Amino acid sequence: MKKAFVTGAAGFIGSSLVDRLLNDGISVIGWDNLSTGQERFLENAHKNKNFHFIKGDNLDLPALTKAMHGCDIIFHLAANADVRFGTHHPSKDLEQNTIATFNVLESARSNKIKRLVFSSTGSVYGEAAVIPTPEDAPFPLQTSLYGASKVAGEAMISAFGEGFGLQAYIFRFVSIVGERYTHGHIFDFYKQLTEDPTKLRILGDGTQRKSYLYIQDCIDAIMHVLNYKSSKPSLFHTEIYNLGTQEYIEVNTSVKTICSQLGLSPTLTHSGGKKGWIGDNPFIFLETKKILSTGWKPKLTIEQGIIRTVEWLKANPWVYDVRDKT
Amino acid sequence: MKKAFVTGAAGFIGSSLVDRLLNDGISVIGWDNLSTGQERFLENAHKNKNFHFIKGDNLDLPALTKAMHGCDIIFHLAANADVRFGTHHPSKDLEQNTIATFNVLESARSNKIKRLVFSSTGSVYGEAAVIPTPEDAPFPLQTSLYGASKVAGEAMISAFGEGFGLQAYIFRFVSIVGERYTHGHIFDFYKQLTEDPTKLRILGDGTQRKSYLYIQDCIDAIMHVLNYKSSKPSLFHTEIYNLGTQEYIEVNTSVKTICSQLGLSPTLTHSGGKKGWIGDNPFIFLETKKILSTGWKPKLTIEQGIIRTVEWLKANPWVYDVRDKT
Repeated sequence: MKKAFVTGAAGFIGSSLVDRLLNDGISVIGWDNLSTGQERFLENAHKNKNFHFIKGDNLDLPALTKAMHGCDIIFHLAANADVRFGTHHPSKDLEQNTIATFNVLESARSNKIKRLVFSSTGSVYGEAAVIPTPEDAPFPLQTSLYGASKVAGEAMISAFGEGFGLQAYIFRFVSIVGERYTHGHIFDFYKQLTEDPTKLRILGDGTQRKSYLYIQDCIDAIMHVLNYKSSKPSLFHTEIYNLGTQEYIEVNTSVKTICSQLGLSPTLTHSGGKKGWIGDNPFIFLETKKILSTGWKPKLTIEQGIIRTVEWLKANPWVYDVRDKT
Repeated sequence: MKKAFVTGAAGFIGSSLVDRLLNDGISVIGWDNLSTGQERFLENAHKNKNFHFIKGDNLDLPALTKAMHGCDIIFHLAANADVRFGTHHPSKDLEQNTIATFNVLESARSNKIKRLVFSSTGSVYGEAAVIPTPEDAPFPLQTSLYGASKVAGEAMISAFGEGFGLQAYIFRFVSIVGERYTHGHIFDFYKQLTEDPTKLRILGDGTQRKSYLYIQDCIDAIMHVLNYKSSKPSLFHTEIYNLGTQEYIEVNTSVKTICSQLGLSPTLTHSGGKKGWIGDNPFIFLETKKILSTGWKPKLTIEQGIIRTVEWLKANPWVYDVRDKT
């Protein structure tokens, strides 16, 4: 790995990965349409002569193909990551995730780039029949357009593996938290509490059980797998890893941690029901035996990850201003 | 079910379904872009006052939405069904299958049509880890762009089920054979034998084991499930059924049946290897317990289906002329 192409380079996970790659001495071309990505996340990267940023959109195939030239690995992280509002604009997941991923694959093929890392999601398991959910869980039904678009992405990637010899690593993430976190329940709760510290409204009945992983543990895992000899994709050229911790947390517990960290005791109201929204998955807990068997393990617990996230949001109120504009 | 919208209405399976629906007293709007569909397949349908044909393409969302108006069920059968040449034109499966299916779903939503039947494929199981392969087989890796596009279609359909209350029936077909069969190994073998009855070239080593289902058995199964009370989708609104017989056949055996039916003894040559082409699945055999439990069963064996296909090709040499033009 000498020169990496990172899509979604200005995003939460993308920019954290860019910093790590540069720190490891790898040249990086960062690609982002800046629709939700933040240029401030790339401030450190821009100080490094091995970093080159190109503003562009994955739906612009010729520009994407040109930008990728000379790279030997692609980290395809750009996506519409908003699971909750999928039904508000159904074509968004198709365009920004499914078609975008196809374009990344076609650009890779044109440029003869043979290695790809893809950020998938635990949402592909829908309401999983087996919990904790292993990578080879029963063929699931999709419950969100986001999950559907990530399944489509995974499927095209493995077909390109078989058809064109692409070596791909697919990571099915739980929700990632930590520095540069810009959407999700902690983001929403913190915003509510800054506006009115006496009240907090929670979607669903708060008993939803979710899994989280700290951003630096996530980046560690990806880099570890890429450097881990026996993890090289062989049969079908595609390797899939769940990425999470060996624990989960109830939304109500997560709320307690956030409030305690902020020294607040708001009155809680719940919208009710087992699900927070249409397509919400009330219990996400991935089996992580496969990634643990490579020798990686997370350094932070879910609670520690949530605390770091709250501290970062406190120190970076500007993210609410820019997010409100999008 | 009063008025059905059939995409791919001029195709092999589509036109056979149209005939059945009309025969059952159901009004039909047939929709086809005639890229591979044959108007001759609709000759009988056109004699029925309950049939209305509209030439159009699934990629034309406004026209599709308009055409669907007033229907209460959609049979979405239109697709690029050519598994073998997926790597020759990777965008074809994305456009004609994935994006086309999204457009069908959006049109259904605009028209408040709440029932949908989708023709998926046993190819979604890739190289299945479990054979015979049940509907809830381990989450597979895709080996063809065709399979990937059908997985994408299934995923969007079930997400629309959860998000918008669509009631969907997904059928994962083995290869369908019989009258109006216009592509596949029997089609290719018959063509070779009419050009030179002394030679037959077979892709792979001929030991590939495949499953086939006779077209009228396929249509029977779809109609049976739609009329079968307890098969109504409940949880997640999507029901998936494998569709095949309880047998499979080796390509070499299939060749013997075809040659014997034609009274020929050609010299056989094999291209070699376990697979016929990149992405070919050397063993397809679906578990059919779920569909059998509804009371449906196939009337014809695989061998009988192959014989009917050969007889139909003999009687309809014109299909080779029109296919050669496409």
